[in-house]
Amino acid sequence: MPDHHSVGATQVKEKRQWTVRASEFAKCTFNPIRSIVDSMKLEPHPDKHMIALSIGDPTIFGNLKPHDAIIEAVQNALHKMKFNGYAPTVGYLEARSAVAEYYTTADTIVSPNDVILCSGCSHALDLCISALASRGQNVLMPRPGFSIYRTLGAGYGINSKFYNLKPEAGWEVDLVHLESLIDKNTVAIIVNNPSNPCGSVYNKQHLLDILQIAERHCLPIIADEIYDFFVFKGEEFHPLASLSQNVPILSCSGLTKRFLVPGWRMGWILIHDRNNVLNVEVRGALQSLSQRIIGSNTLVQGALPDILRNTPKSFFDETIATVQENAEIAFEKLQLCPGLHPVKPQGAMYMMIGIEMRRYPEFVTEFQFVERLVSEQSVFCLPGKCFDYPDYFRIVLTIPKEQLLIAMDRIMEFCCDHHIEEKNAGQHIVE
Amino acid sequence: MPDHHSVGATQVKEKRQWTVRASEFAKCTFNPIRSIVDSMKLEPHPDKHMIALSIGDPTIFGNLKPHDAIIEAVQNALHKMKFNGYAPTVGYLEARSAVAEYYTTADTIVSPNDVILCSGCSHALDLCISALASRGQNVLMPRPGFSIYRTLGAGYGINSKFYNLKPEAGWEVDLVHLESLIDKNTVAIIVNNPSNPCGSVYNKQHLLDILQIAERHCLPIIADEIYDFFVFKGEEFHPLASLSQNVPILSCSGLTKRFLVPGWRMGWILIHDRNNVLNVEVRGALQSLSQRIIGSNTLVQGALPDILRNTPKSFFDETIATVQENAEIAFEKLQLCPGLHPVKPQGAMYMMIGIEMRRYPEFVTEFQFVERLVSEQSVFCLPGKCFDYPDYFRIVLTIPKEQLLIAMDRIMEFCCDHHIEEKNAGQHIVE
Ligand SMILES: Cc1ncc(COP(=O)(O)O)c(C=O)c1O
Ligand SMILES: Cc1ncc(COP(=O)(O)O)c(C=O)c1O
Repeated sequence: MPDHHSVGATQVKEKRQWTVRASEFAKCTFNPIRSIVDSMKLEPHPDKHMIALSIGDPTIFGNLKPHDAIIEAVQNALHKMKFNGYAPTVGYLEARSAVAEYYTTADTIVSPNDVILCSGCSHALDLCISALASRGQNVLMPRPGFSIYRTLGAGYGINSKFYNLKPEAGWEVDLVHLESLIDKNTVAIIVNNPSNPCGSVYNKQHLLDILQIAERHCLPIIADEIYDFFVFKGEEFHPLASLSQNVPILSCSGLTKRFLVPGWRMGWILIHDRNNVLNVEVRGALQSLSQRIIGSNTLVQGALPDILRNTPKSFFDETIATVQENAEIAFEKLQLCPGLHPVKPQGAMYMMIGIEMRRYPEFVTEFQFVERLVSEQSVFCLPGKCFDYPDYFRIVLTIPKEQLLIAMDRIMEFCCDHHIEEKNAGQHIVE
Repeated sequence: MPDHHSVGATQVKEKRQWTVRASEFAKCTFNPIRSIVDSMKLEPHPDKHMIALSIGDPTIFGNLKPHDAIIEAVQNALHKMKFNGYAPTVGYLEARSAVAEYYTTADTIVSPNDVILCSGCSHALDLCISALASRGQNVLMPRPGFSIYRTLGAGYGINSKFYNLKPEAGWEVDLVHLESLIDKNTVAIIVNNPSNPCGSVYNKQHLLDILQIAERHCLPIIADEIYDFFVFKGEEFHPLASLSQNVPILSCSGLTKRFLVPGWRMGWILIHDRNNVLNVEVRGALQSLSQRIIGSNTLVQGALPDILRNTPKSFFDETIATVQENAEIAFEKLQLCPGLHPVKPQGAMYMMIGIEMRRYPEFVTEFQFVERLVSEQSVFCLPGKCFDYPDYFRIVLTIPKEQLLIAMDRIMEFCCDHHIEEKNAGQHIVE
């Protein structure tokens, strides 16, 4: 509807109607998960309680809770009455020092000046993407991948280019495809390890291969490592920055997942500069951008040194053991479901499951499969569409075991009800 | 420096140098206060301790502290263990309900759905500006005014147009000037009341006059009311939204100033829609934008109902009394300084002081005046330049009285040392 222009007798300026439009920025800022979920018919079966395997919040089931040391640290910070005022926009020095210390190893030295505290890892990613890329430039990101990368970039007119992950190779990056996407407008590569939604954990060699591509094309990497160290027994997490002397890397992480406090909104960027490449402009850019919303909550900042120092290793081990047990249970059960192909995770809190769609001719897409799973079995999984990856769905592994077992039985029942035999599969297509 | 292109024997793609640039967005995001202060020579006099009258953080002197009820509320929220997970990106319903209740009066009904919790008032302003304005459009804002409005808009390519405030009329808006700035690309007016840096509090009629202009041109208003109710005895604060039935208003506020917890980063937007104007697009836009960084700290959100209900009126009264007493002391003292013209504030935490520059011929700008005040008297005030307003400086009024008295004496000494007599003033200009 165009504005209606009329010039009144007593008016100098044009009279406009009350039409207040939203900005382009807002219109382009679009969370696909939200709108996909909102567009779904989510009527659970009336006789079965709903089991939501959809939400990446490890705290919602009540079985996983932050350790006492974490709560105490905030309690102490609160009562010190020293953490109520404005902190520097990049965070208190003490808090940044604690993060730096936490990540410093014999090989990788992180200084407090390399740390920018943010309001959650999302904010860290927002700063990194918006510091590196301008309108019309592009950032490479994984498919399937976490949707916020694209959401954050789109508002700024930054293009997203998706490199493929290979389910048959434990979701490793298709390196040839990745490299083929790089063009003169490419400004960064996002690498998410361990991965949401895949639960994959890359080995050293694969990370080195990715780094080699970045180095060949002189591209910095944004390493989304919000699940850092969140790997199953026997697996090893390699911080990307520990493996390169030449590629500048912005590592994003935070307390969110492993410390089980997503609502506290404490994230950070570690600036791993190499050969003073980021010092020229990007470090300053990140600092300027941090001034927009003046940093993260100071109580959590004040508690950060104690949180990072005092949370016992056993706490993480227990969380991971819970998730790993669930992963094993779910993997075994789902493998037995006709036409389902779970991909075994090595860390994080998720598993992706492929659906052989031709064995489910009732459903055109995995979206319909997931919708019907809700209405018949009251089990809600996220359709692959949420990660730009059709024919798959994602489950979360942080749910209490008993609930998971029920959910797995229901999925089995659902598959038994709806699949057709292998030998008949595909027939419907030609009918 | 252009990229260096060379095609190596084994390489398919162009080889680039390690030149990683910052984005346009980052380059345009520029906090003038930070860079102005950084550019100042701030060497205090070695024999006099530094008194910083520059920082708008009411907690830094230690004399003003959040009330016990505020601390207890967070303590309780922490131990309930219910506020660690993700909240909805606009905030918990209970927290939004508490804010809605806090602002609801007989005349103005605020529903929880009209509240969006943000990471501080800066974030609230960021959402409002970026939801309403696109590249090439403009937003009207006060001069002198808080610099973040321009900083936030500039990154998005939004133009800032400054309407004048009139020091001789208690910093009321120059309405004729305001209206003259409106053009077809104008999408919103920012009104800051009570004001930083002026400390002005507008009366009802003046606010009605501003609203009339907005109504005439069908422009929504962003009301920065972070100092809401922070007015001296005898003054009255009128929420802008309480005075209009037709102008859509986004009111921004938070805990920051009045509750003395700037670091906690708890702000909010109240959506005062009128005739369903904002419902069409803007409400949805604000909600989408809130998903970028997933809202504000959940512990503070969990505490918000208790904070808003249990903080006693006496706490606010005491803070205001402290500031008002300081305002009166500073005003009286500064009025006696030759060539200084303090403008009496009615609220907030600041006072602007005009300098008759022709009576200080040693200094070309107020910037030099302020710099020398540091080197000779160790008193640091913000130069008007920080608010786009030369020939003035701003002081904060939250400092302990004893410190304020010392600072005032030092300013007097400084003025006595440097001013020239009225009758001689201006001579230097023609010399
Ligand atoms: C891969 C990945 N990155 C970043 C985030 C965002 O984390 P935060 O809640 O700290 O913003 C998530 C949250 O689910 C995630 O899965
Ligand atoms: C007028 C005005 N608006 C907004 C803000 C920002 O408040 P917050 O710290 O909640 O982001 C300030 C802070 O000084 C201010 O003076």
